[in-house]
Formats: sequence, structure tokens, C-alpha cells
Amino acid sequence: MIFIDLRDHEGVVQVVFDPDRAEMFARAEQVRSEYVLRVTGRVRRRPEGTTNPELNTGAVEVLGLDLEVLNAARTPPFPLDDEDVGEETRLRYRYIDLRRPVMQERLRLRARVTRSLRRFLDDTGFVDIETPMLTKATPEGARDYLVPSRTHPGHFFALPQSPQLFKQLLMIGGMDRYYQITRCFRDEDLRADRQPEFTQLDIEMAFVDEADVMALNERLIRTMFRDVLGVELPDPFPRMTHAEAMARFGSDRPDLRIPLEFTDLTERMRDVEFKVFNAPANDPEGRVAALRLPGGGTLSRKEIDDYTRFVGRFGARGLAYIKVNRVADGVAGLQSPILKFLPDEVALEILERTGAEDGDLIFFGADKANVVNESLGALRVQLGHDRGLVAEGWAPLWVIDFPMFEWDAKEGRFYALHHPFTAPAVPDAEVLRADPRAALSRAYDMVLNGTEVGGGSIRIHRPEMQRAAFDLLGIGEAEAAEKFGFLLDALTQGAPPHGGIAFGLDRLVMLMAGAGSIRDVMAFPKTQSAACPLTDAPAPVGDVQLRELGIRLRAQPPAS
Amino acid sequence: MIFIDLRDHEGVVQVVFDPDRAEMFARAEQVRSEYVLRVTGRVRRRPEGTTNPELNTGAVEVLGLDLEVLNAARTPPFPLDDEDVGEETRLRYRYIDLRRPVMQERLRLRARVTRSLRRFLDDTGFVDIETPMLTKATPEGARDYLVPSRTHPGHFFALPQSPQLFKQLLMIGGMDRYYQITRCFRDEDLRADRQPEFTQLDIEMAFVDEADVMALNERLIRTMFRDVLGVELPDPFPRMTHAEAMARFGSDRPDLRIPLEFTDLTERMRDVEFKVFNAPANDPEGRVAALRLPGGGTLSRKEIDDYTRFVGRFGARGLAYIKVNRVADGVAGLQSPILKFLPDEVALEILERTGAEDGDLIFFGADKANVVNESLGALRVQLGHDRGLVAEGWAPLWVIDFPMFEWDAKEGRFYALHHPFTAPAVPDAEVLRADPRAALSRAYDMVLNGTEVGGGSIRIHRPEMQRAAFDLLGIGEAEAAEKFGFLLDALTQGAPPHGGIAFGLDRLVMLMAGAGSIRDVMAFPKTQSAACPLTDAPAPVGDVQLRELGIRLRAQPPAS
Repeated sequence: MIFIDLRDHEGVVQVVFDPDRAEMFARAEQVRSEYVLRVTGRVRRRPEGTTNPELNTGAVEVLGLDLEVLNAARTPPFPLDDEDVGEETRLRYRYIDLRRPVMQERLRLRARVTRSLRRFLDDTGFVDIETPMLTKATPEGARDYLVPSRTHPGHFFALPQSPQLFKQLLMIGGMDRYYQITRCFRDEDLRADRQPEFTQLDIEMAFVDEADVMALNERLIRTMFRDVLGVELPDPFPRMTHAEAMARFGSDRPDLRIPLEFTDLTERMRDVEFKVFNAPANDPEGRVAALRLPGGGTLSRKEIDDYTRFVGRFGARGLAYIKVNRVADGVAGLQSPILKFLPDEVALEILERTGAEDGDLIFFGADKANVVNESLGALRVQLGHDRGLVAEGWAPLWVIDFPMFEWDAKEGRFYALHHPFTAPAVPDAEVLRADPRAALSRAYDMVLNGTEVGGGSIRIHRPEMQRAAFDLLGIGEAEAAEKFGFLLDALTQGAPPHGGIAFGLDRLVMLMAGAGSIRDVMAFPKTQSAACPLTDAPAPVGDVQLRELGIRLRAQPPAS
Repeated sequence: MIFIDLRDHEGVVQVVFDPDRAEMFARAEQVRSEYVLRVTGRVRRRPEGTTNPELNTGAVEVLGLDLEVLNAARTPPFPLDDEDVGEETRLRYRYIDLRRPVMQERLRLRARVTRSLRRFLDDTGFVDIETPMLTKATPEGARDYLVPSRTHPGHFFALPQSPQLFKQLLMIGGMDRYYQITRCFRDEDLRADRQPEFTQLDIEMAFVDEADVMALNERLIRTMFRDVLGVELPDPFPRMTHAEAMARFGSDRPDLRIPLEFTDLTERMRDVEFKVFNAPANDPEGRVAALRLPGGGTLSRKEIDDYTRFVGRFGARGLAYIKVNRVADGVAGLQSPILKFLPDEVALEILERTGAEDGDLIFFGADKANVVNESLGALRVQLGHDRGLVAEGWAPLWVIDFPMFEWDAKEGRFYALHHPFTAPAVPDAEVLRADPRAALSRAYDMVLNGTEVGGGSIRIHRPEMQRAAFDLLGIGEAEAAEKFGFLLDALTQGAPPHGGIAFGLDRLVMLMAGAGSIRDVMAFPKTQSAACPLTDAPAPVGDVQLRELGIRLRAQPPAS
């Protein structure tokens, strides 16, 4: 007898060829791994003792009566069930890799996600509208991909970093409720889990405020999780101001599944004579914070050293800590290299304010606030995972009340925390100009399990406010006219109040699939060097083509 | 009293402000065209004699009780109801143009079309999968848009002309049924109604033959027409071979709403001593055909001259004709400059074979077959429209049995009538190589009212057949390996039989909307010179950016 595991997109079934049927048996003998077959046969129960409970179809088999080889196959470059194949190889032979059940499931999950999102939006009065891919440089801050124009030599299109301005124009054009699932492009260095092209669910609504947009998009995501995963997300999602998120978690996208929080000690440390703490405490841009790790007293010296190196990657110059052996013993129950610098009453107050218990460990961050937030915030997440503290399930969160601008002291200029079209939460342009640092924006980010999955805002809809925002961002009149003149014009032509949001579809699906990278939920992703090992893109092109486009290559510096 | 027509995306309602309410009245006096307002008021029946039956809301009005100006507006660059505004101006102020009800309806129709298509496909087991935009040059025959790579200087991505190879790879990757509504790019000269970027509904299925793909896609389009327009298309769609379509209509996308047909006279004219007819009749690549226009006897000399010029645009060197006054009078009932060259029995046979009746006119084409087909085929369509002969309604059609290759005598080489991945209707590669001119392909085009809306084929799934097709198309081993090596590899790794189709979404929606151009069903189209008057794309870019991309501009020849 010959047994063949016959696979299609729905699963696997065992086919049996019997030597009694000599011709078919002979054909079946020729069949190799990954051949494409047409089999006619009779489904029958498997004989007693040969059933396979791990297979959906494990109770039956097909007795093969006819067999046709539709296509032969060479030996695959790697066995489908080999877990140790490098990603480069998987991407080079993606058509093999995609046959793995886990990849089939991920792509199908992704399709179910977009289907559910679309249905909700279609049924809620949104109109799916396509915006251009060959367009003008967009102001999202990353590098644009450029496309030389043949008909306008010396001129270039930019691939969109987002459809931001077009969706605003659609609102000004009276479309009321728009959505699009669309490709966006950023020519960034791909250190993090980023891709040159990624997919965004883009939404915009006219005549709305923050509450409208957030309520609708909560319903959207809640409905989608129910449809696709059968999961009920909280109703409503919790909301947290940016200030609170930074204070408690050092992050504007806190993972609420991790039950660790900062205790702020900045004020308390101002007059403590320990320079490591009182210098940042007295720096207007500094911060001192503690992070209590329950049960952290079991950490070894080496583990603490590793975490010290870990926070160093975020700019922290050290990682002070206190081990709490017995709270009841007061300072005598503590163990720490920094204890000798801390007055007893300060140490005791730290114990009390962090709620330390026997066996805990308290980490400290003391530096510029952004260094403390980034390093201690990252440590919090790392500890959560390392110590098994991450709760099961889904923790969505809205972060709101962002500052409108971020002041870059080094460059002496403001940056937009979102983008320059975000409306400030002030009544008019005069108020914004009077005290820009105090202005909050009307932006909101949707965070899920510590990942920002969506971000949006109410937009500026009045030209004088938009000009004020450009001014404060150092975008002069000439630059504004050149880059955004059409938007400024449009704002004078009867622009309704409007706002929206954009979701990173790849990240959302990655989280839902439990995948480790957005590359795992894309059919044909690029490598970290922005190349495609399958098609060998990008590739050299001939001089004729370059000439038509009015460009030539620069001489390359010799490879060193 | 002040009357304000208040418009939103759902329509218009009349708001009345009463001088009794002085403050609101004063505010209402400030309101100008296209201002954005928030109005609170009481809906009431309009007074007797003031109802407007042309308006949906014409029986009521809103008595304004509160009024807030949400945004002011400058005088619009053109009045919304001005029909004579040039397209360049409309595109420059597209956000104004989009406020016109007809544009609102078109974009909403487009969204209803994609929604219906998606729902059908989602519900029929298809998986929506995204394929890359930054990819390798695709072999669709048009010029690629290129994107310089920063991380691989001197190398370029190409924007896809279609996802053809990726969808084939998805089938080889076991995805079974794929679809995508996706942007495609062709850097063509835009004489015809074409756009640099356009949208395709792309479909591929594994383990299918022509009948499967055509049946499913007929159902898809039929369902969509029912959903969106409430129209029942024929079931099944008529089918016609390519040979029959060319013979009867001179076109591979005949508009079956027009009741005019060719009568082929090639054989009959072989030994008629009239060189204009017998030369093409004896040319193996020639053709002689007649086109009877019922009632065409009323055409004036000038009209016939105009049609002669018209066919001249398609290469015809003249336009012979016979007016039929009275059939019963035989040749005496005919009127024509060519009559003296035609023996009576030939003239009578033409009458009989074309089914001429009193008052008809018969046009003739005699030239290379492609000139006759193009010119007389175009004349057929033009006459149909000019003479009001186009039947109401929808005439879908499948055109099948295309030749696999087209022989270019001048260049002495074969061209693919579809693309090089189309399966020939022959049992194996040997047969194909033995007589490539005789081979038909397994391609099918869906035609609607004379426009090709979709085209597809069963694809080659065996490497030896693909190599034979490449060979015959003059794609040598080295070129095939460089351009399509990954496909050839994939075909050796267990590729199932597969096939699919791609629909031009813009054209389909244009037909359904009764619009004159695909630009009318796109939110932000480009002009005929591939530019966007709204954003001023494409635009110059700075040298820093070019340097990063490893390119520089060529010196431009001085403008002449």
C-alpha cells in the first residue's frame, strides 16, 4: 500500500493506493513531495487502530481509484515543517513558505480583519474612496519614495506616506465620511519592525469632535474583534491623558496588561543630598522615578547587570535599585549600593510610596525625563515579559490630551507631536500663539497591548489657525505656500470641521495573529534592507530607461 | 426674510430666517455662498404656493432659530452649477468640483460597486491578499514607473503594471482563491482615456479551467449589476470566438447594442477586375468587407465625406459605398462611384448577401485586414451612435479562442496577444513549437457595450510550456532567467493549474455611471499630461534628496 498525504488550502487527507490496482499503484509510486495531484477515490473509515486524532480528517482515508499528476515538483528547498529556516530563505521561496498552515491562517485572518472593518464602515455611511499614489511629497516627517516623471523631466512624484491631505480635501469636497484601506510608503531605515510599504486603514469624518471619532472607532474595533476572534473588548475603552501615561508608565502607549507602575520621586529628591538623584530632580527637564518589581528580590547580580545594560541602550547611565528583604525591619531590611547616600526617612518614604513588600525590588531612573521615561518604560515592559507578569487578553486604551508641540531645546524649535494639521485644543489662533507650550492638541491614539495601533485627531479647519500652526513649526509663508498652498486655499473655500484616524493594519493583524513581526502578516514583505529576495527587486535598469526619465546614476564611491 | 439653501452630502434644504429674530437675522445676512453653517431650527411645511417639486425636500423648510458660522468661504472659483468650466480648473479645485451632486453620486456609485464585488468574492471563498507596490519590472508591455532605491544605489523598484506574477505565486503558494482591488501603474502616453495609475479588480483561482473562471465572473458581474443598478444582465453572457468577432464586427470587443454587421467579400472579390477590391482580396493579409447601414441612403455627400475622413484616421485610403434606392430595380436602383468597376452580378450578389433594402447604404473596406477591421469597425460604432441605432441597456459578451500569438511581419517576430503567461490551448509544448501560428490561447475577455472591462486566461503551470512560450516570443534563456527566473523556479515546485481575470474598475464604473471619461469616476485624477493641477505634482526635488538616491538630473535640452 502507498499512503499519500494530500494537502489543499483546507487541510490534509490521507489517500491510500492499493497494489490490487496495478496501474494507479505504479503512478502513485512516482509521486514525490509537493507534487500536484488529482485523485478520485472512495472515502472510507480508517481501519481500527490507524485513526489519527490530531488530524481533522484523521478518522477517514480516501481509497485512491484514479490518480493524475497535474504537475511534478522538485525537492522543496526546505521542508515545510522545518522551524529553523532563515527568514531570507523563506522570503526567497515565499511560495513554498506560504504553504505552511500558519502562513495560510495569517493571510486568511488578515482578510477576515479587512472584511469586517469594511463591512462595519460600509454599513455606517462611510464611502470607500481611492486617493492617488503618484502624488506630492507629504509632510509626515519620514523620507519619501520618489518617482521620476518622464513627461515632466526633472520633476518627481512622491509615493504617499499617508493620504492625510487628500482625505481632508475630501471632507472639504463634501464627502462627509470617508475610508480607505491603502498602501503607504516611508523610506526609513528599517531597524525596527518596519516595512517600506505598509497598509493603513484611513478614516475621516466631517462635522465631528473627538468624542464622535473615538466612539465610532471603538465600536469599529470592538465589532471587528468580535467578528474575527470572538473576543469582547471592554466597552468603553479606558482613556488616559498623555501626562498620566508618561507619569505612570513612562510611555505614551502603555501596555496595561503589565501590573507595574512608576512612582514619581522628582519633587521628593530635590533636596536630598545625593547628586545622582537631586541633579535631575532640580533640572526642569529632569525626572526621578521608581519602579517596584514585586518578587524582584530574587533577581541575581547578573540579571541586574543585564538590566543595567538594557536600560543603557535607552541612554540611562546606570540602574540604581533597592532590594527589600523585610519591610518590617525598615532600612535594616534593605539592601542597595545607593542606601548610604539616602537619608533613612527618604528610603522609608520610598518604601511606603512604592508600596514595597517583602521580597520586592525597586529600580530607579534619574536623568532627563525622556531618558527616564524611555529606559524605565522599556524596563517595565521587559520585566513584565521576563517575569511572566503580562496578563492574558487584550488591553485597549485611548491616550488623549497630547501636547500640541514638543520643544527641541537643542535646535531651539517646536516639533508637532502628531502632524501640522492637528487641531490645538484652544479657542483661536491668538491663544495658540500666546502660549504654544501650554497648548494640548485634539489628538488621540489607540493603544493595544502596548502597541500604538491607531492615531488621529480633529484637524485644523480654519486657515488662520493653520497658518499659526505652520508659523510655530517654523514653516514660513513661502514654504507653506509651496508645500501646502492647495490645503490653505481649500481651507478658505468652506471647510467643515473634520477629524479622523488611521490604523496600522499590519500591526493590528500582527497582534491578532500573535505573530512576531509585521512581515509575518504580509504575503510578500521586504527584508530589513528593503529588498525582495524573491524577485530580486530593486534591480538595475538600462540607460535608455534612465535617459527617458531625465536622470543618470551618480558614480558610486568604491566599496570599502 | 432670508432664505439659505443649506447643502450637505445628502441633499439641500431651504432655511428661512425671520427678521423677528434680530440677532440670527443679522448673522444670516453675513452668510455667503459655500459658508459652513450649523443651524438649529424647526421643520415646517412650506407655505401654499412656495413648494418646490424639483427638490426632495421641496415641501418643507427649516425655520432657523439658531445659526453658527463654522467656517467662512471665499467666493468659489466657479459656481457649482456651471457646466462650462474647463477640466483643468475643475481638477485644480477638485474639492469644489467634488461638491457637485453628480460627482458625489459617481464616487458613491464607485464605492457601491467595490463593496458588492468584495462581498460576492468574500462570500465565495476568495481571500483578499495584498501584493507589493515596490517590486520588479513587470512584463505587461507598457513602460514602468521606476522608484530609485536609497539603500541599493543604482537599483530601482518598478511600480506594478499588474499583480500578475504575484497572484500566480499565491496560487503556487496554496492560496486557492485570491482577489485584490489594487492600484496599477503604466507610464504611457495618455492620448486615449488612460491614467498613469488605475485600479484593477484582480482575481486568480487554482484548479480551474476556462469554464469555471468565466462562470464565476459572470455571476460576480451579474450580482454586482443587480446590487448596484437593479439591472438583470443576461444569463449566461453570450460567447463569441475572436475569429467570429473580427469577421462580423472587425473588433475583438464588439458593441452588440449596435445592429450593424460586416459582410465578408474577400473571397468573392478575388477575381473581380477592380483593383481596389481584388488586390486586398488576393493578399493573404488583406480583407474586403461591406457594412450595410439601414436607411443610410439619406446620408448627404458631406456626411459621407466626413466618414471618409473618419476612416482615414484608422489608415483606410478611401471609403467606397453604394446607395440602394430600389432593390427591385437591380443595378439600376444603385448609385455609386464604384458601380462602373463592378460586374452587375457582383453588385447584385452584394445586395443579396448584405440583405440590402430600399433606402440603405453599403460601405466598403478593402485593405490589409487590420486596416479594414479597425476602420470599418470604428465606422460601425460611429454610425451606430450618429444614427441613433444603439439599443438601450447592457450588452455583455465573452470573447474567447484568441490566437496565442500575433505575427509581426515587419519585425519578423511573434507577440503575445495577452501576456506571456497565458496558456495555449494545446496539449503540450511540442505541439506549440510545431505550429505556433495555429495555436489558440486559453484567454477570455469580458466585453460590455463595446468596452473591454475584463481580461484573463488560464495560465501556463508547467515550466516546459512556459519556456516554449518564452522561446517563441524571443525571450532567450538568459533574459527569461533574469526577468522571470523566480516564476520558472516556482513552476518547478508544484504549481497547480490556475487561471484568473482582471477587471478595469475605472472603466467598469465609468460605464455604469454613464460618465464620459475614467477621470470622472476618480476622486483625484491626473491630466492628460500626467500631472495633478491640485497639488502641482510632479514637482522638483532638492539635490540632497537626489544625492541620497544616488541619481542626478540630466541636463535638459533647451526648450525650443
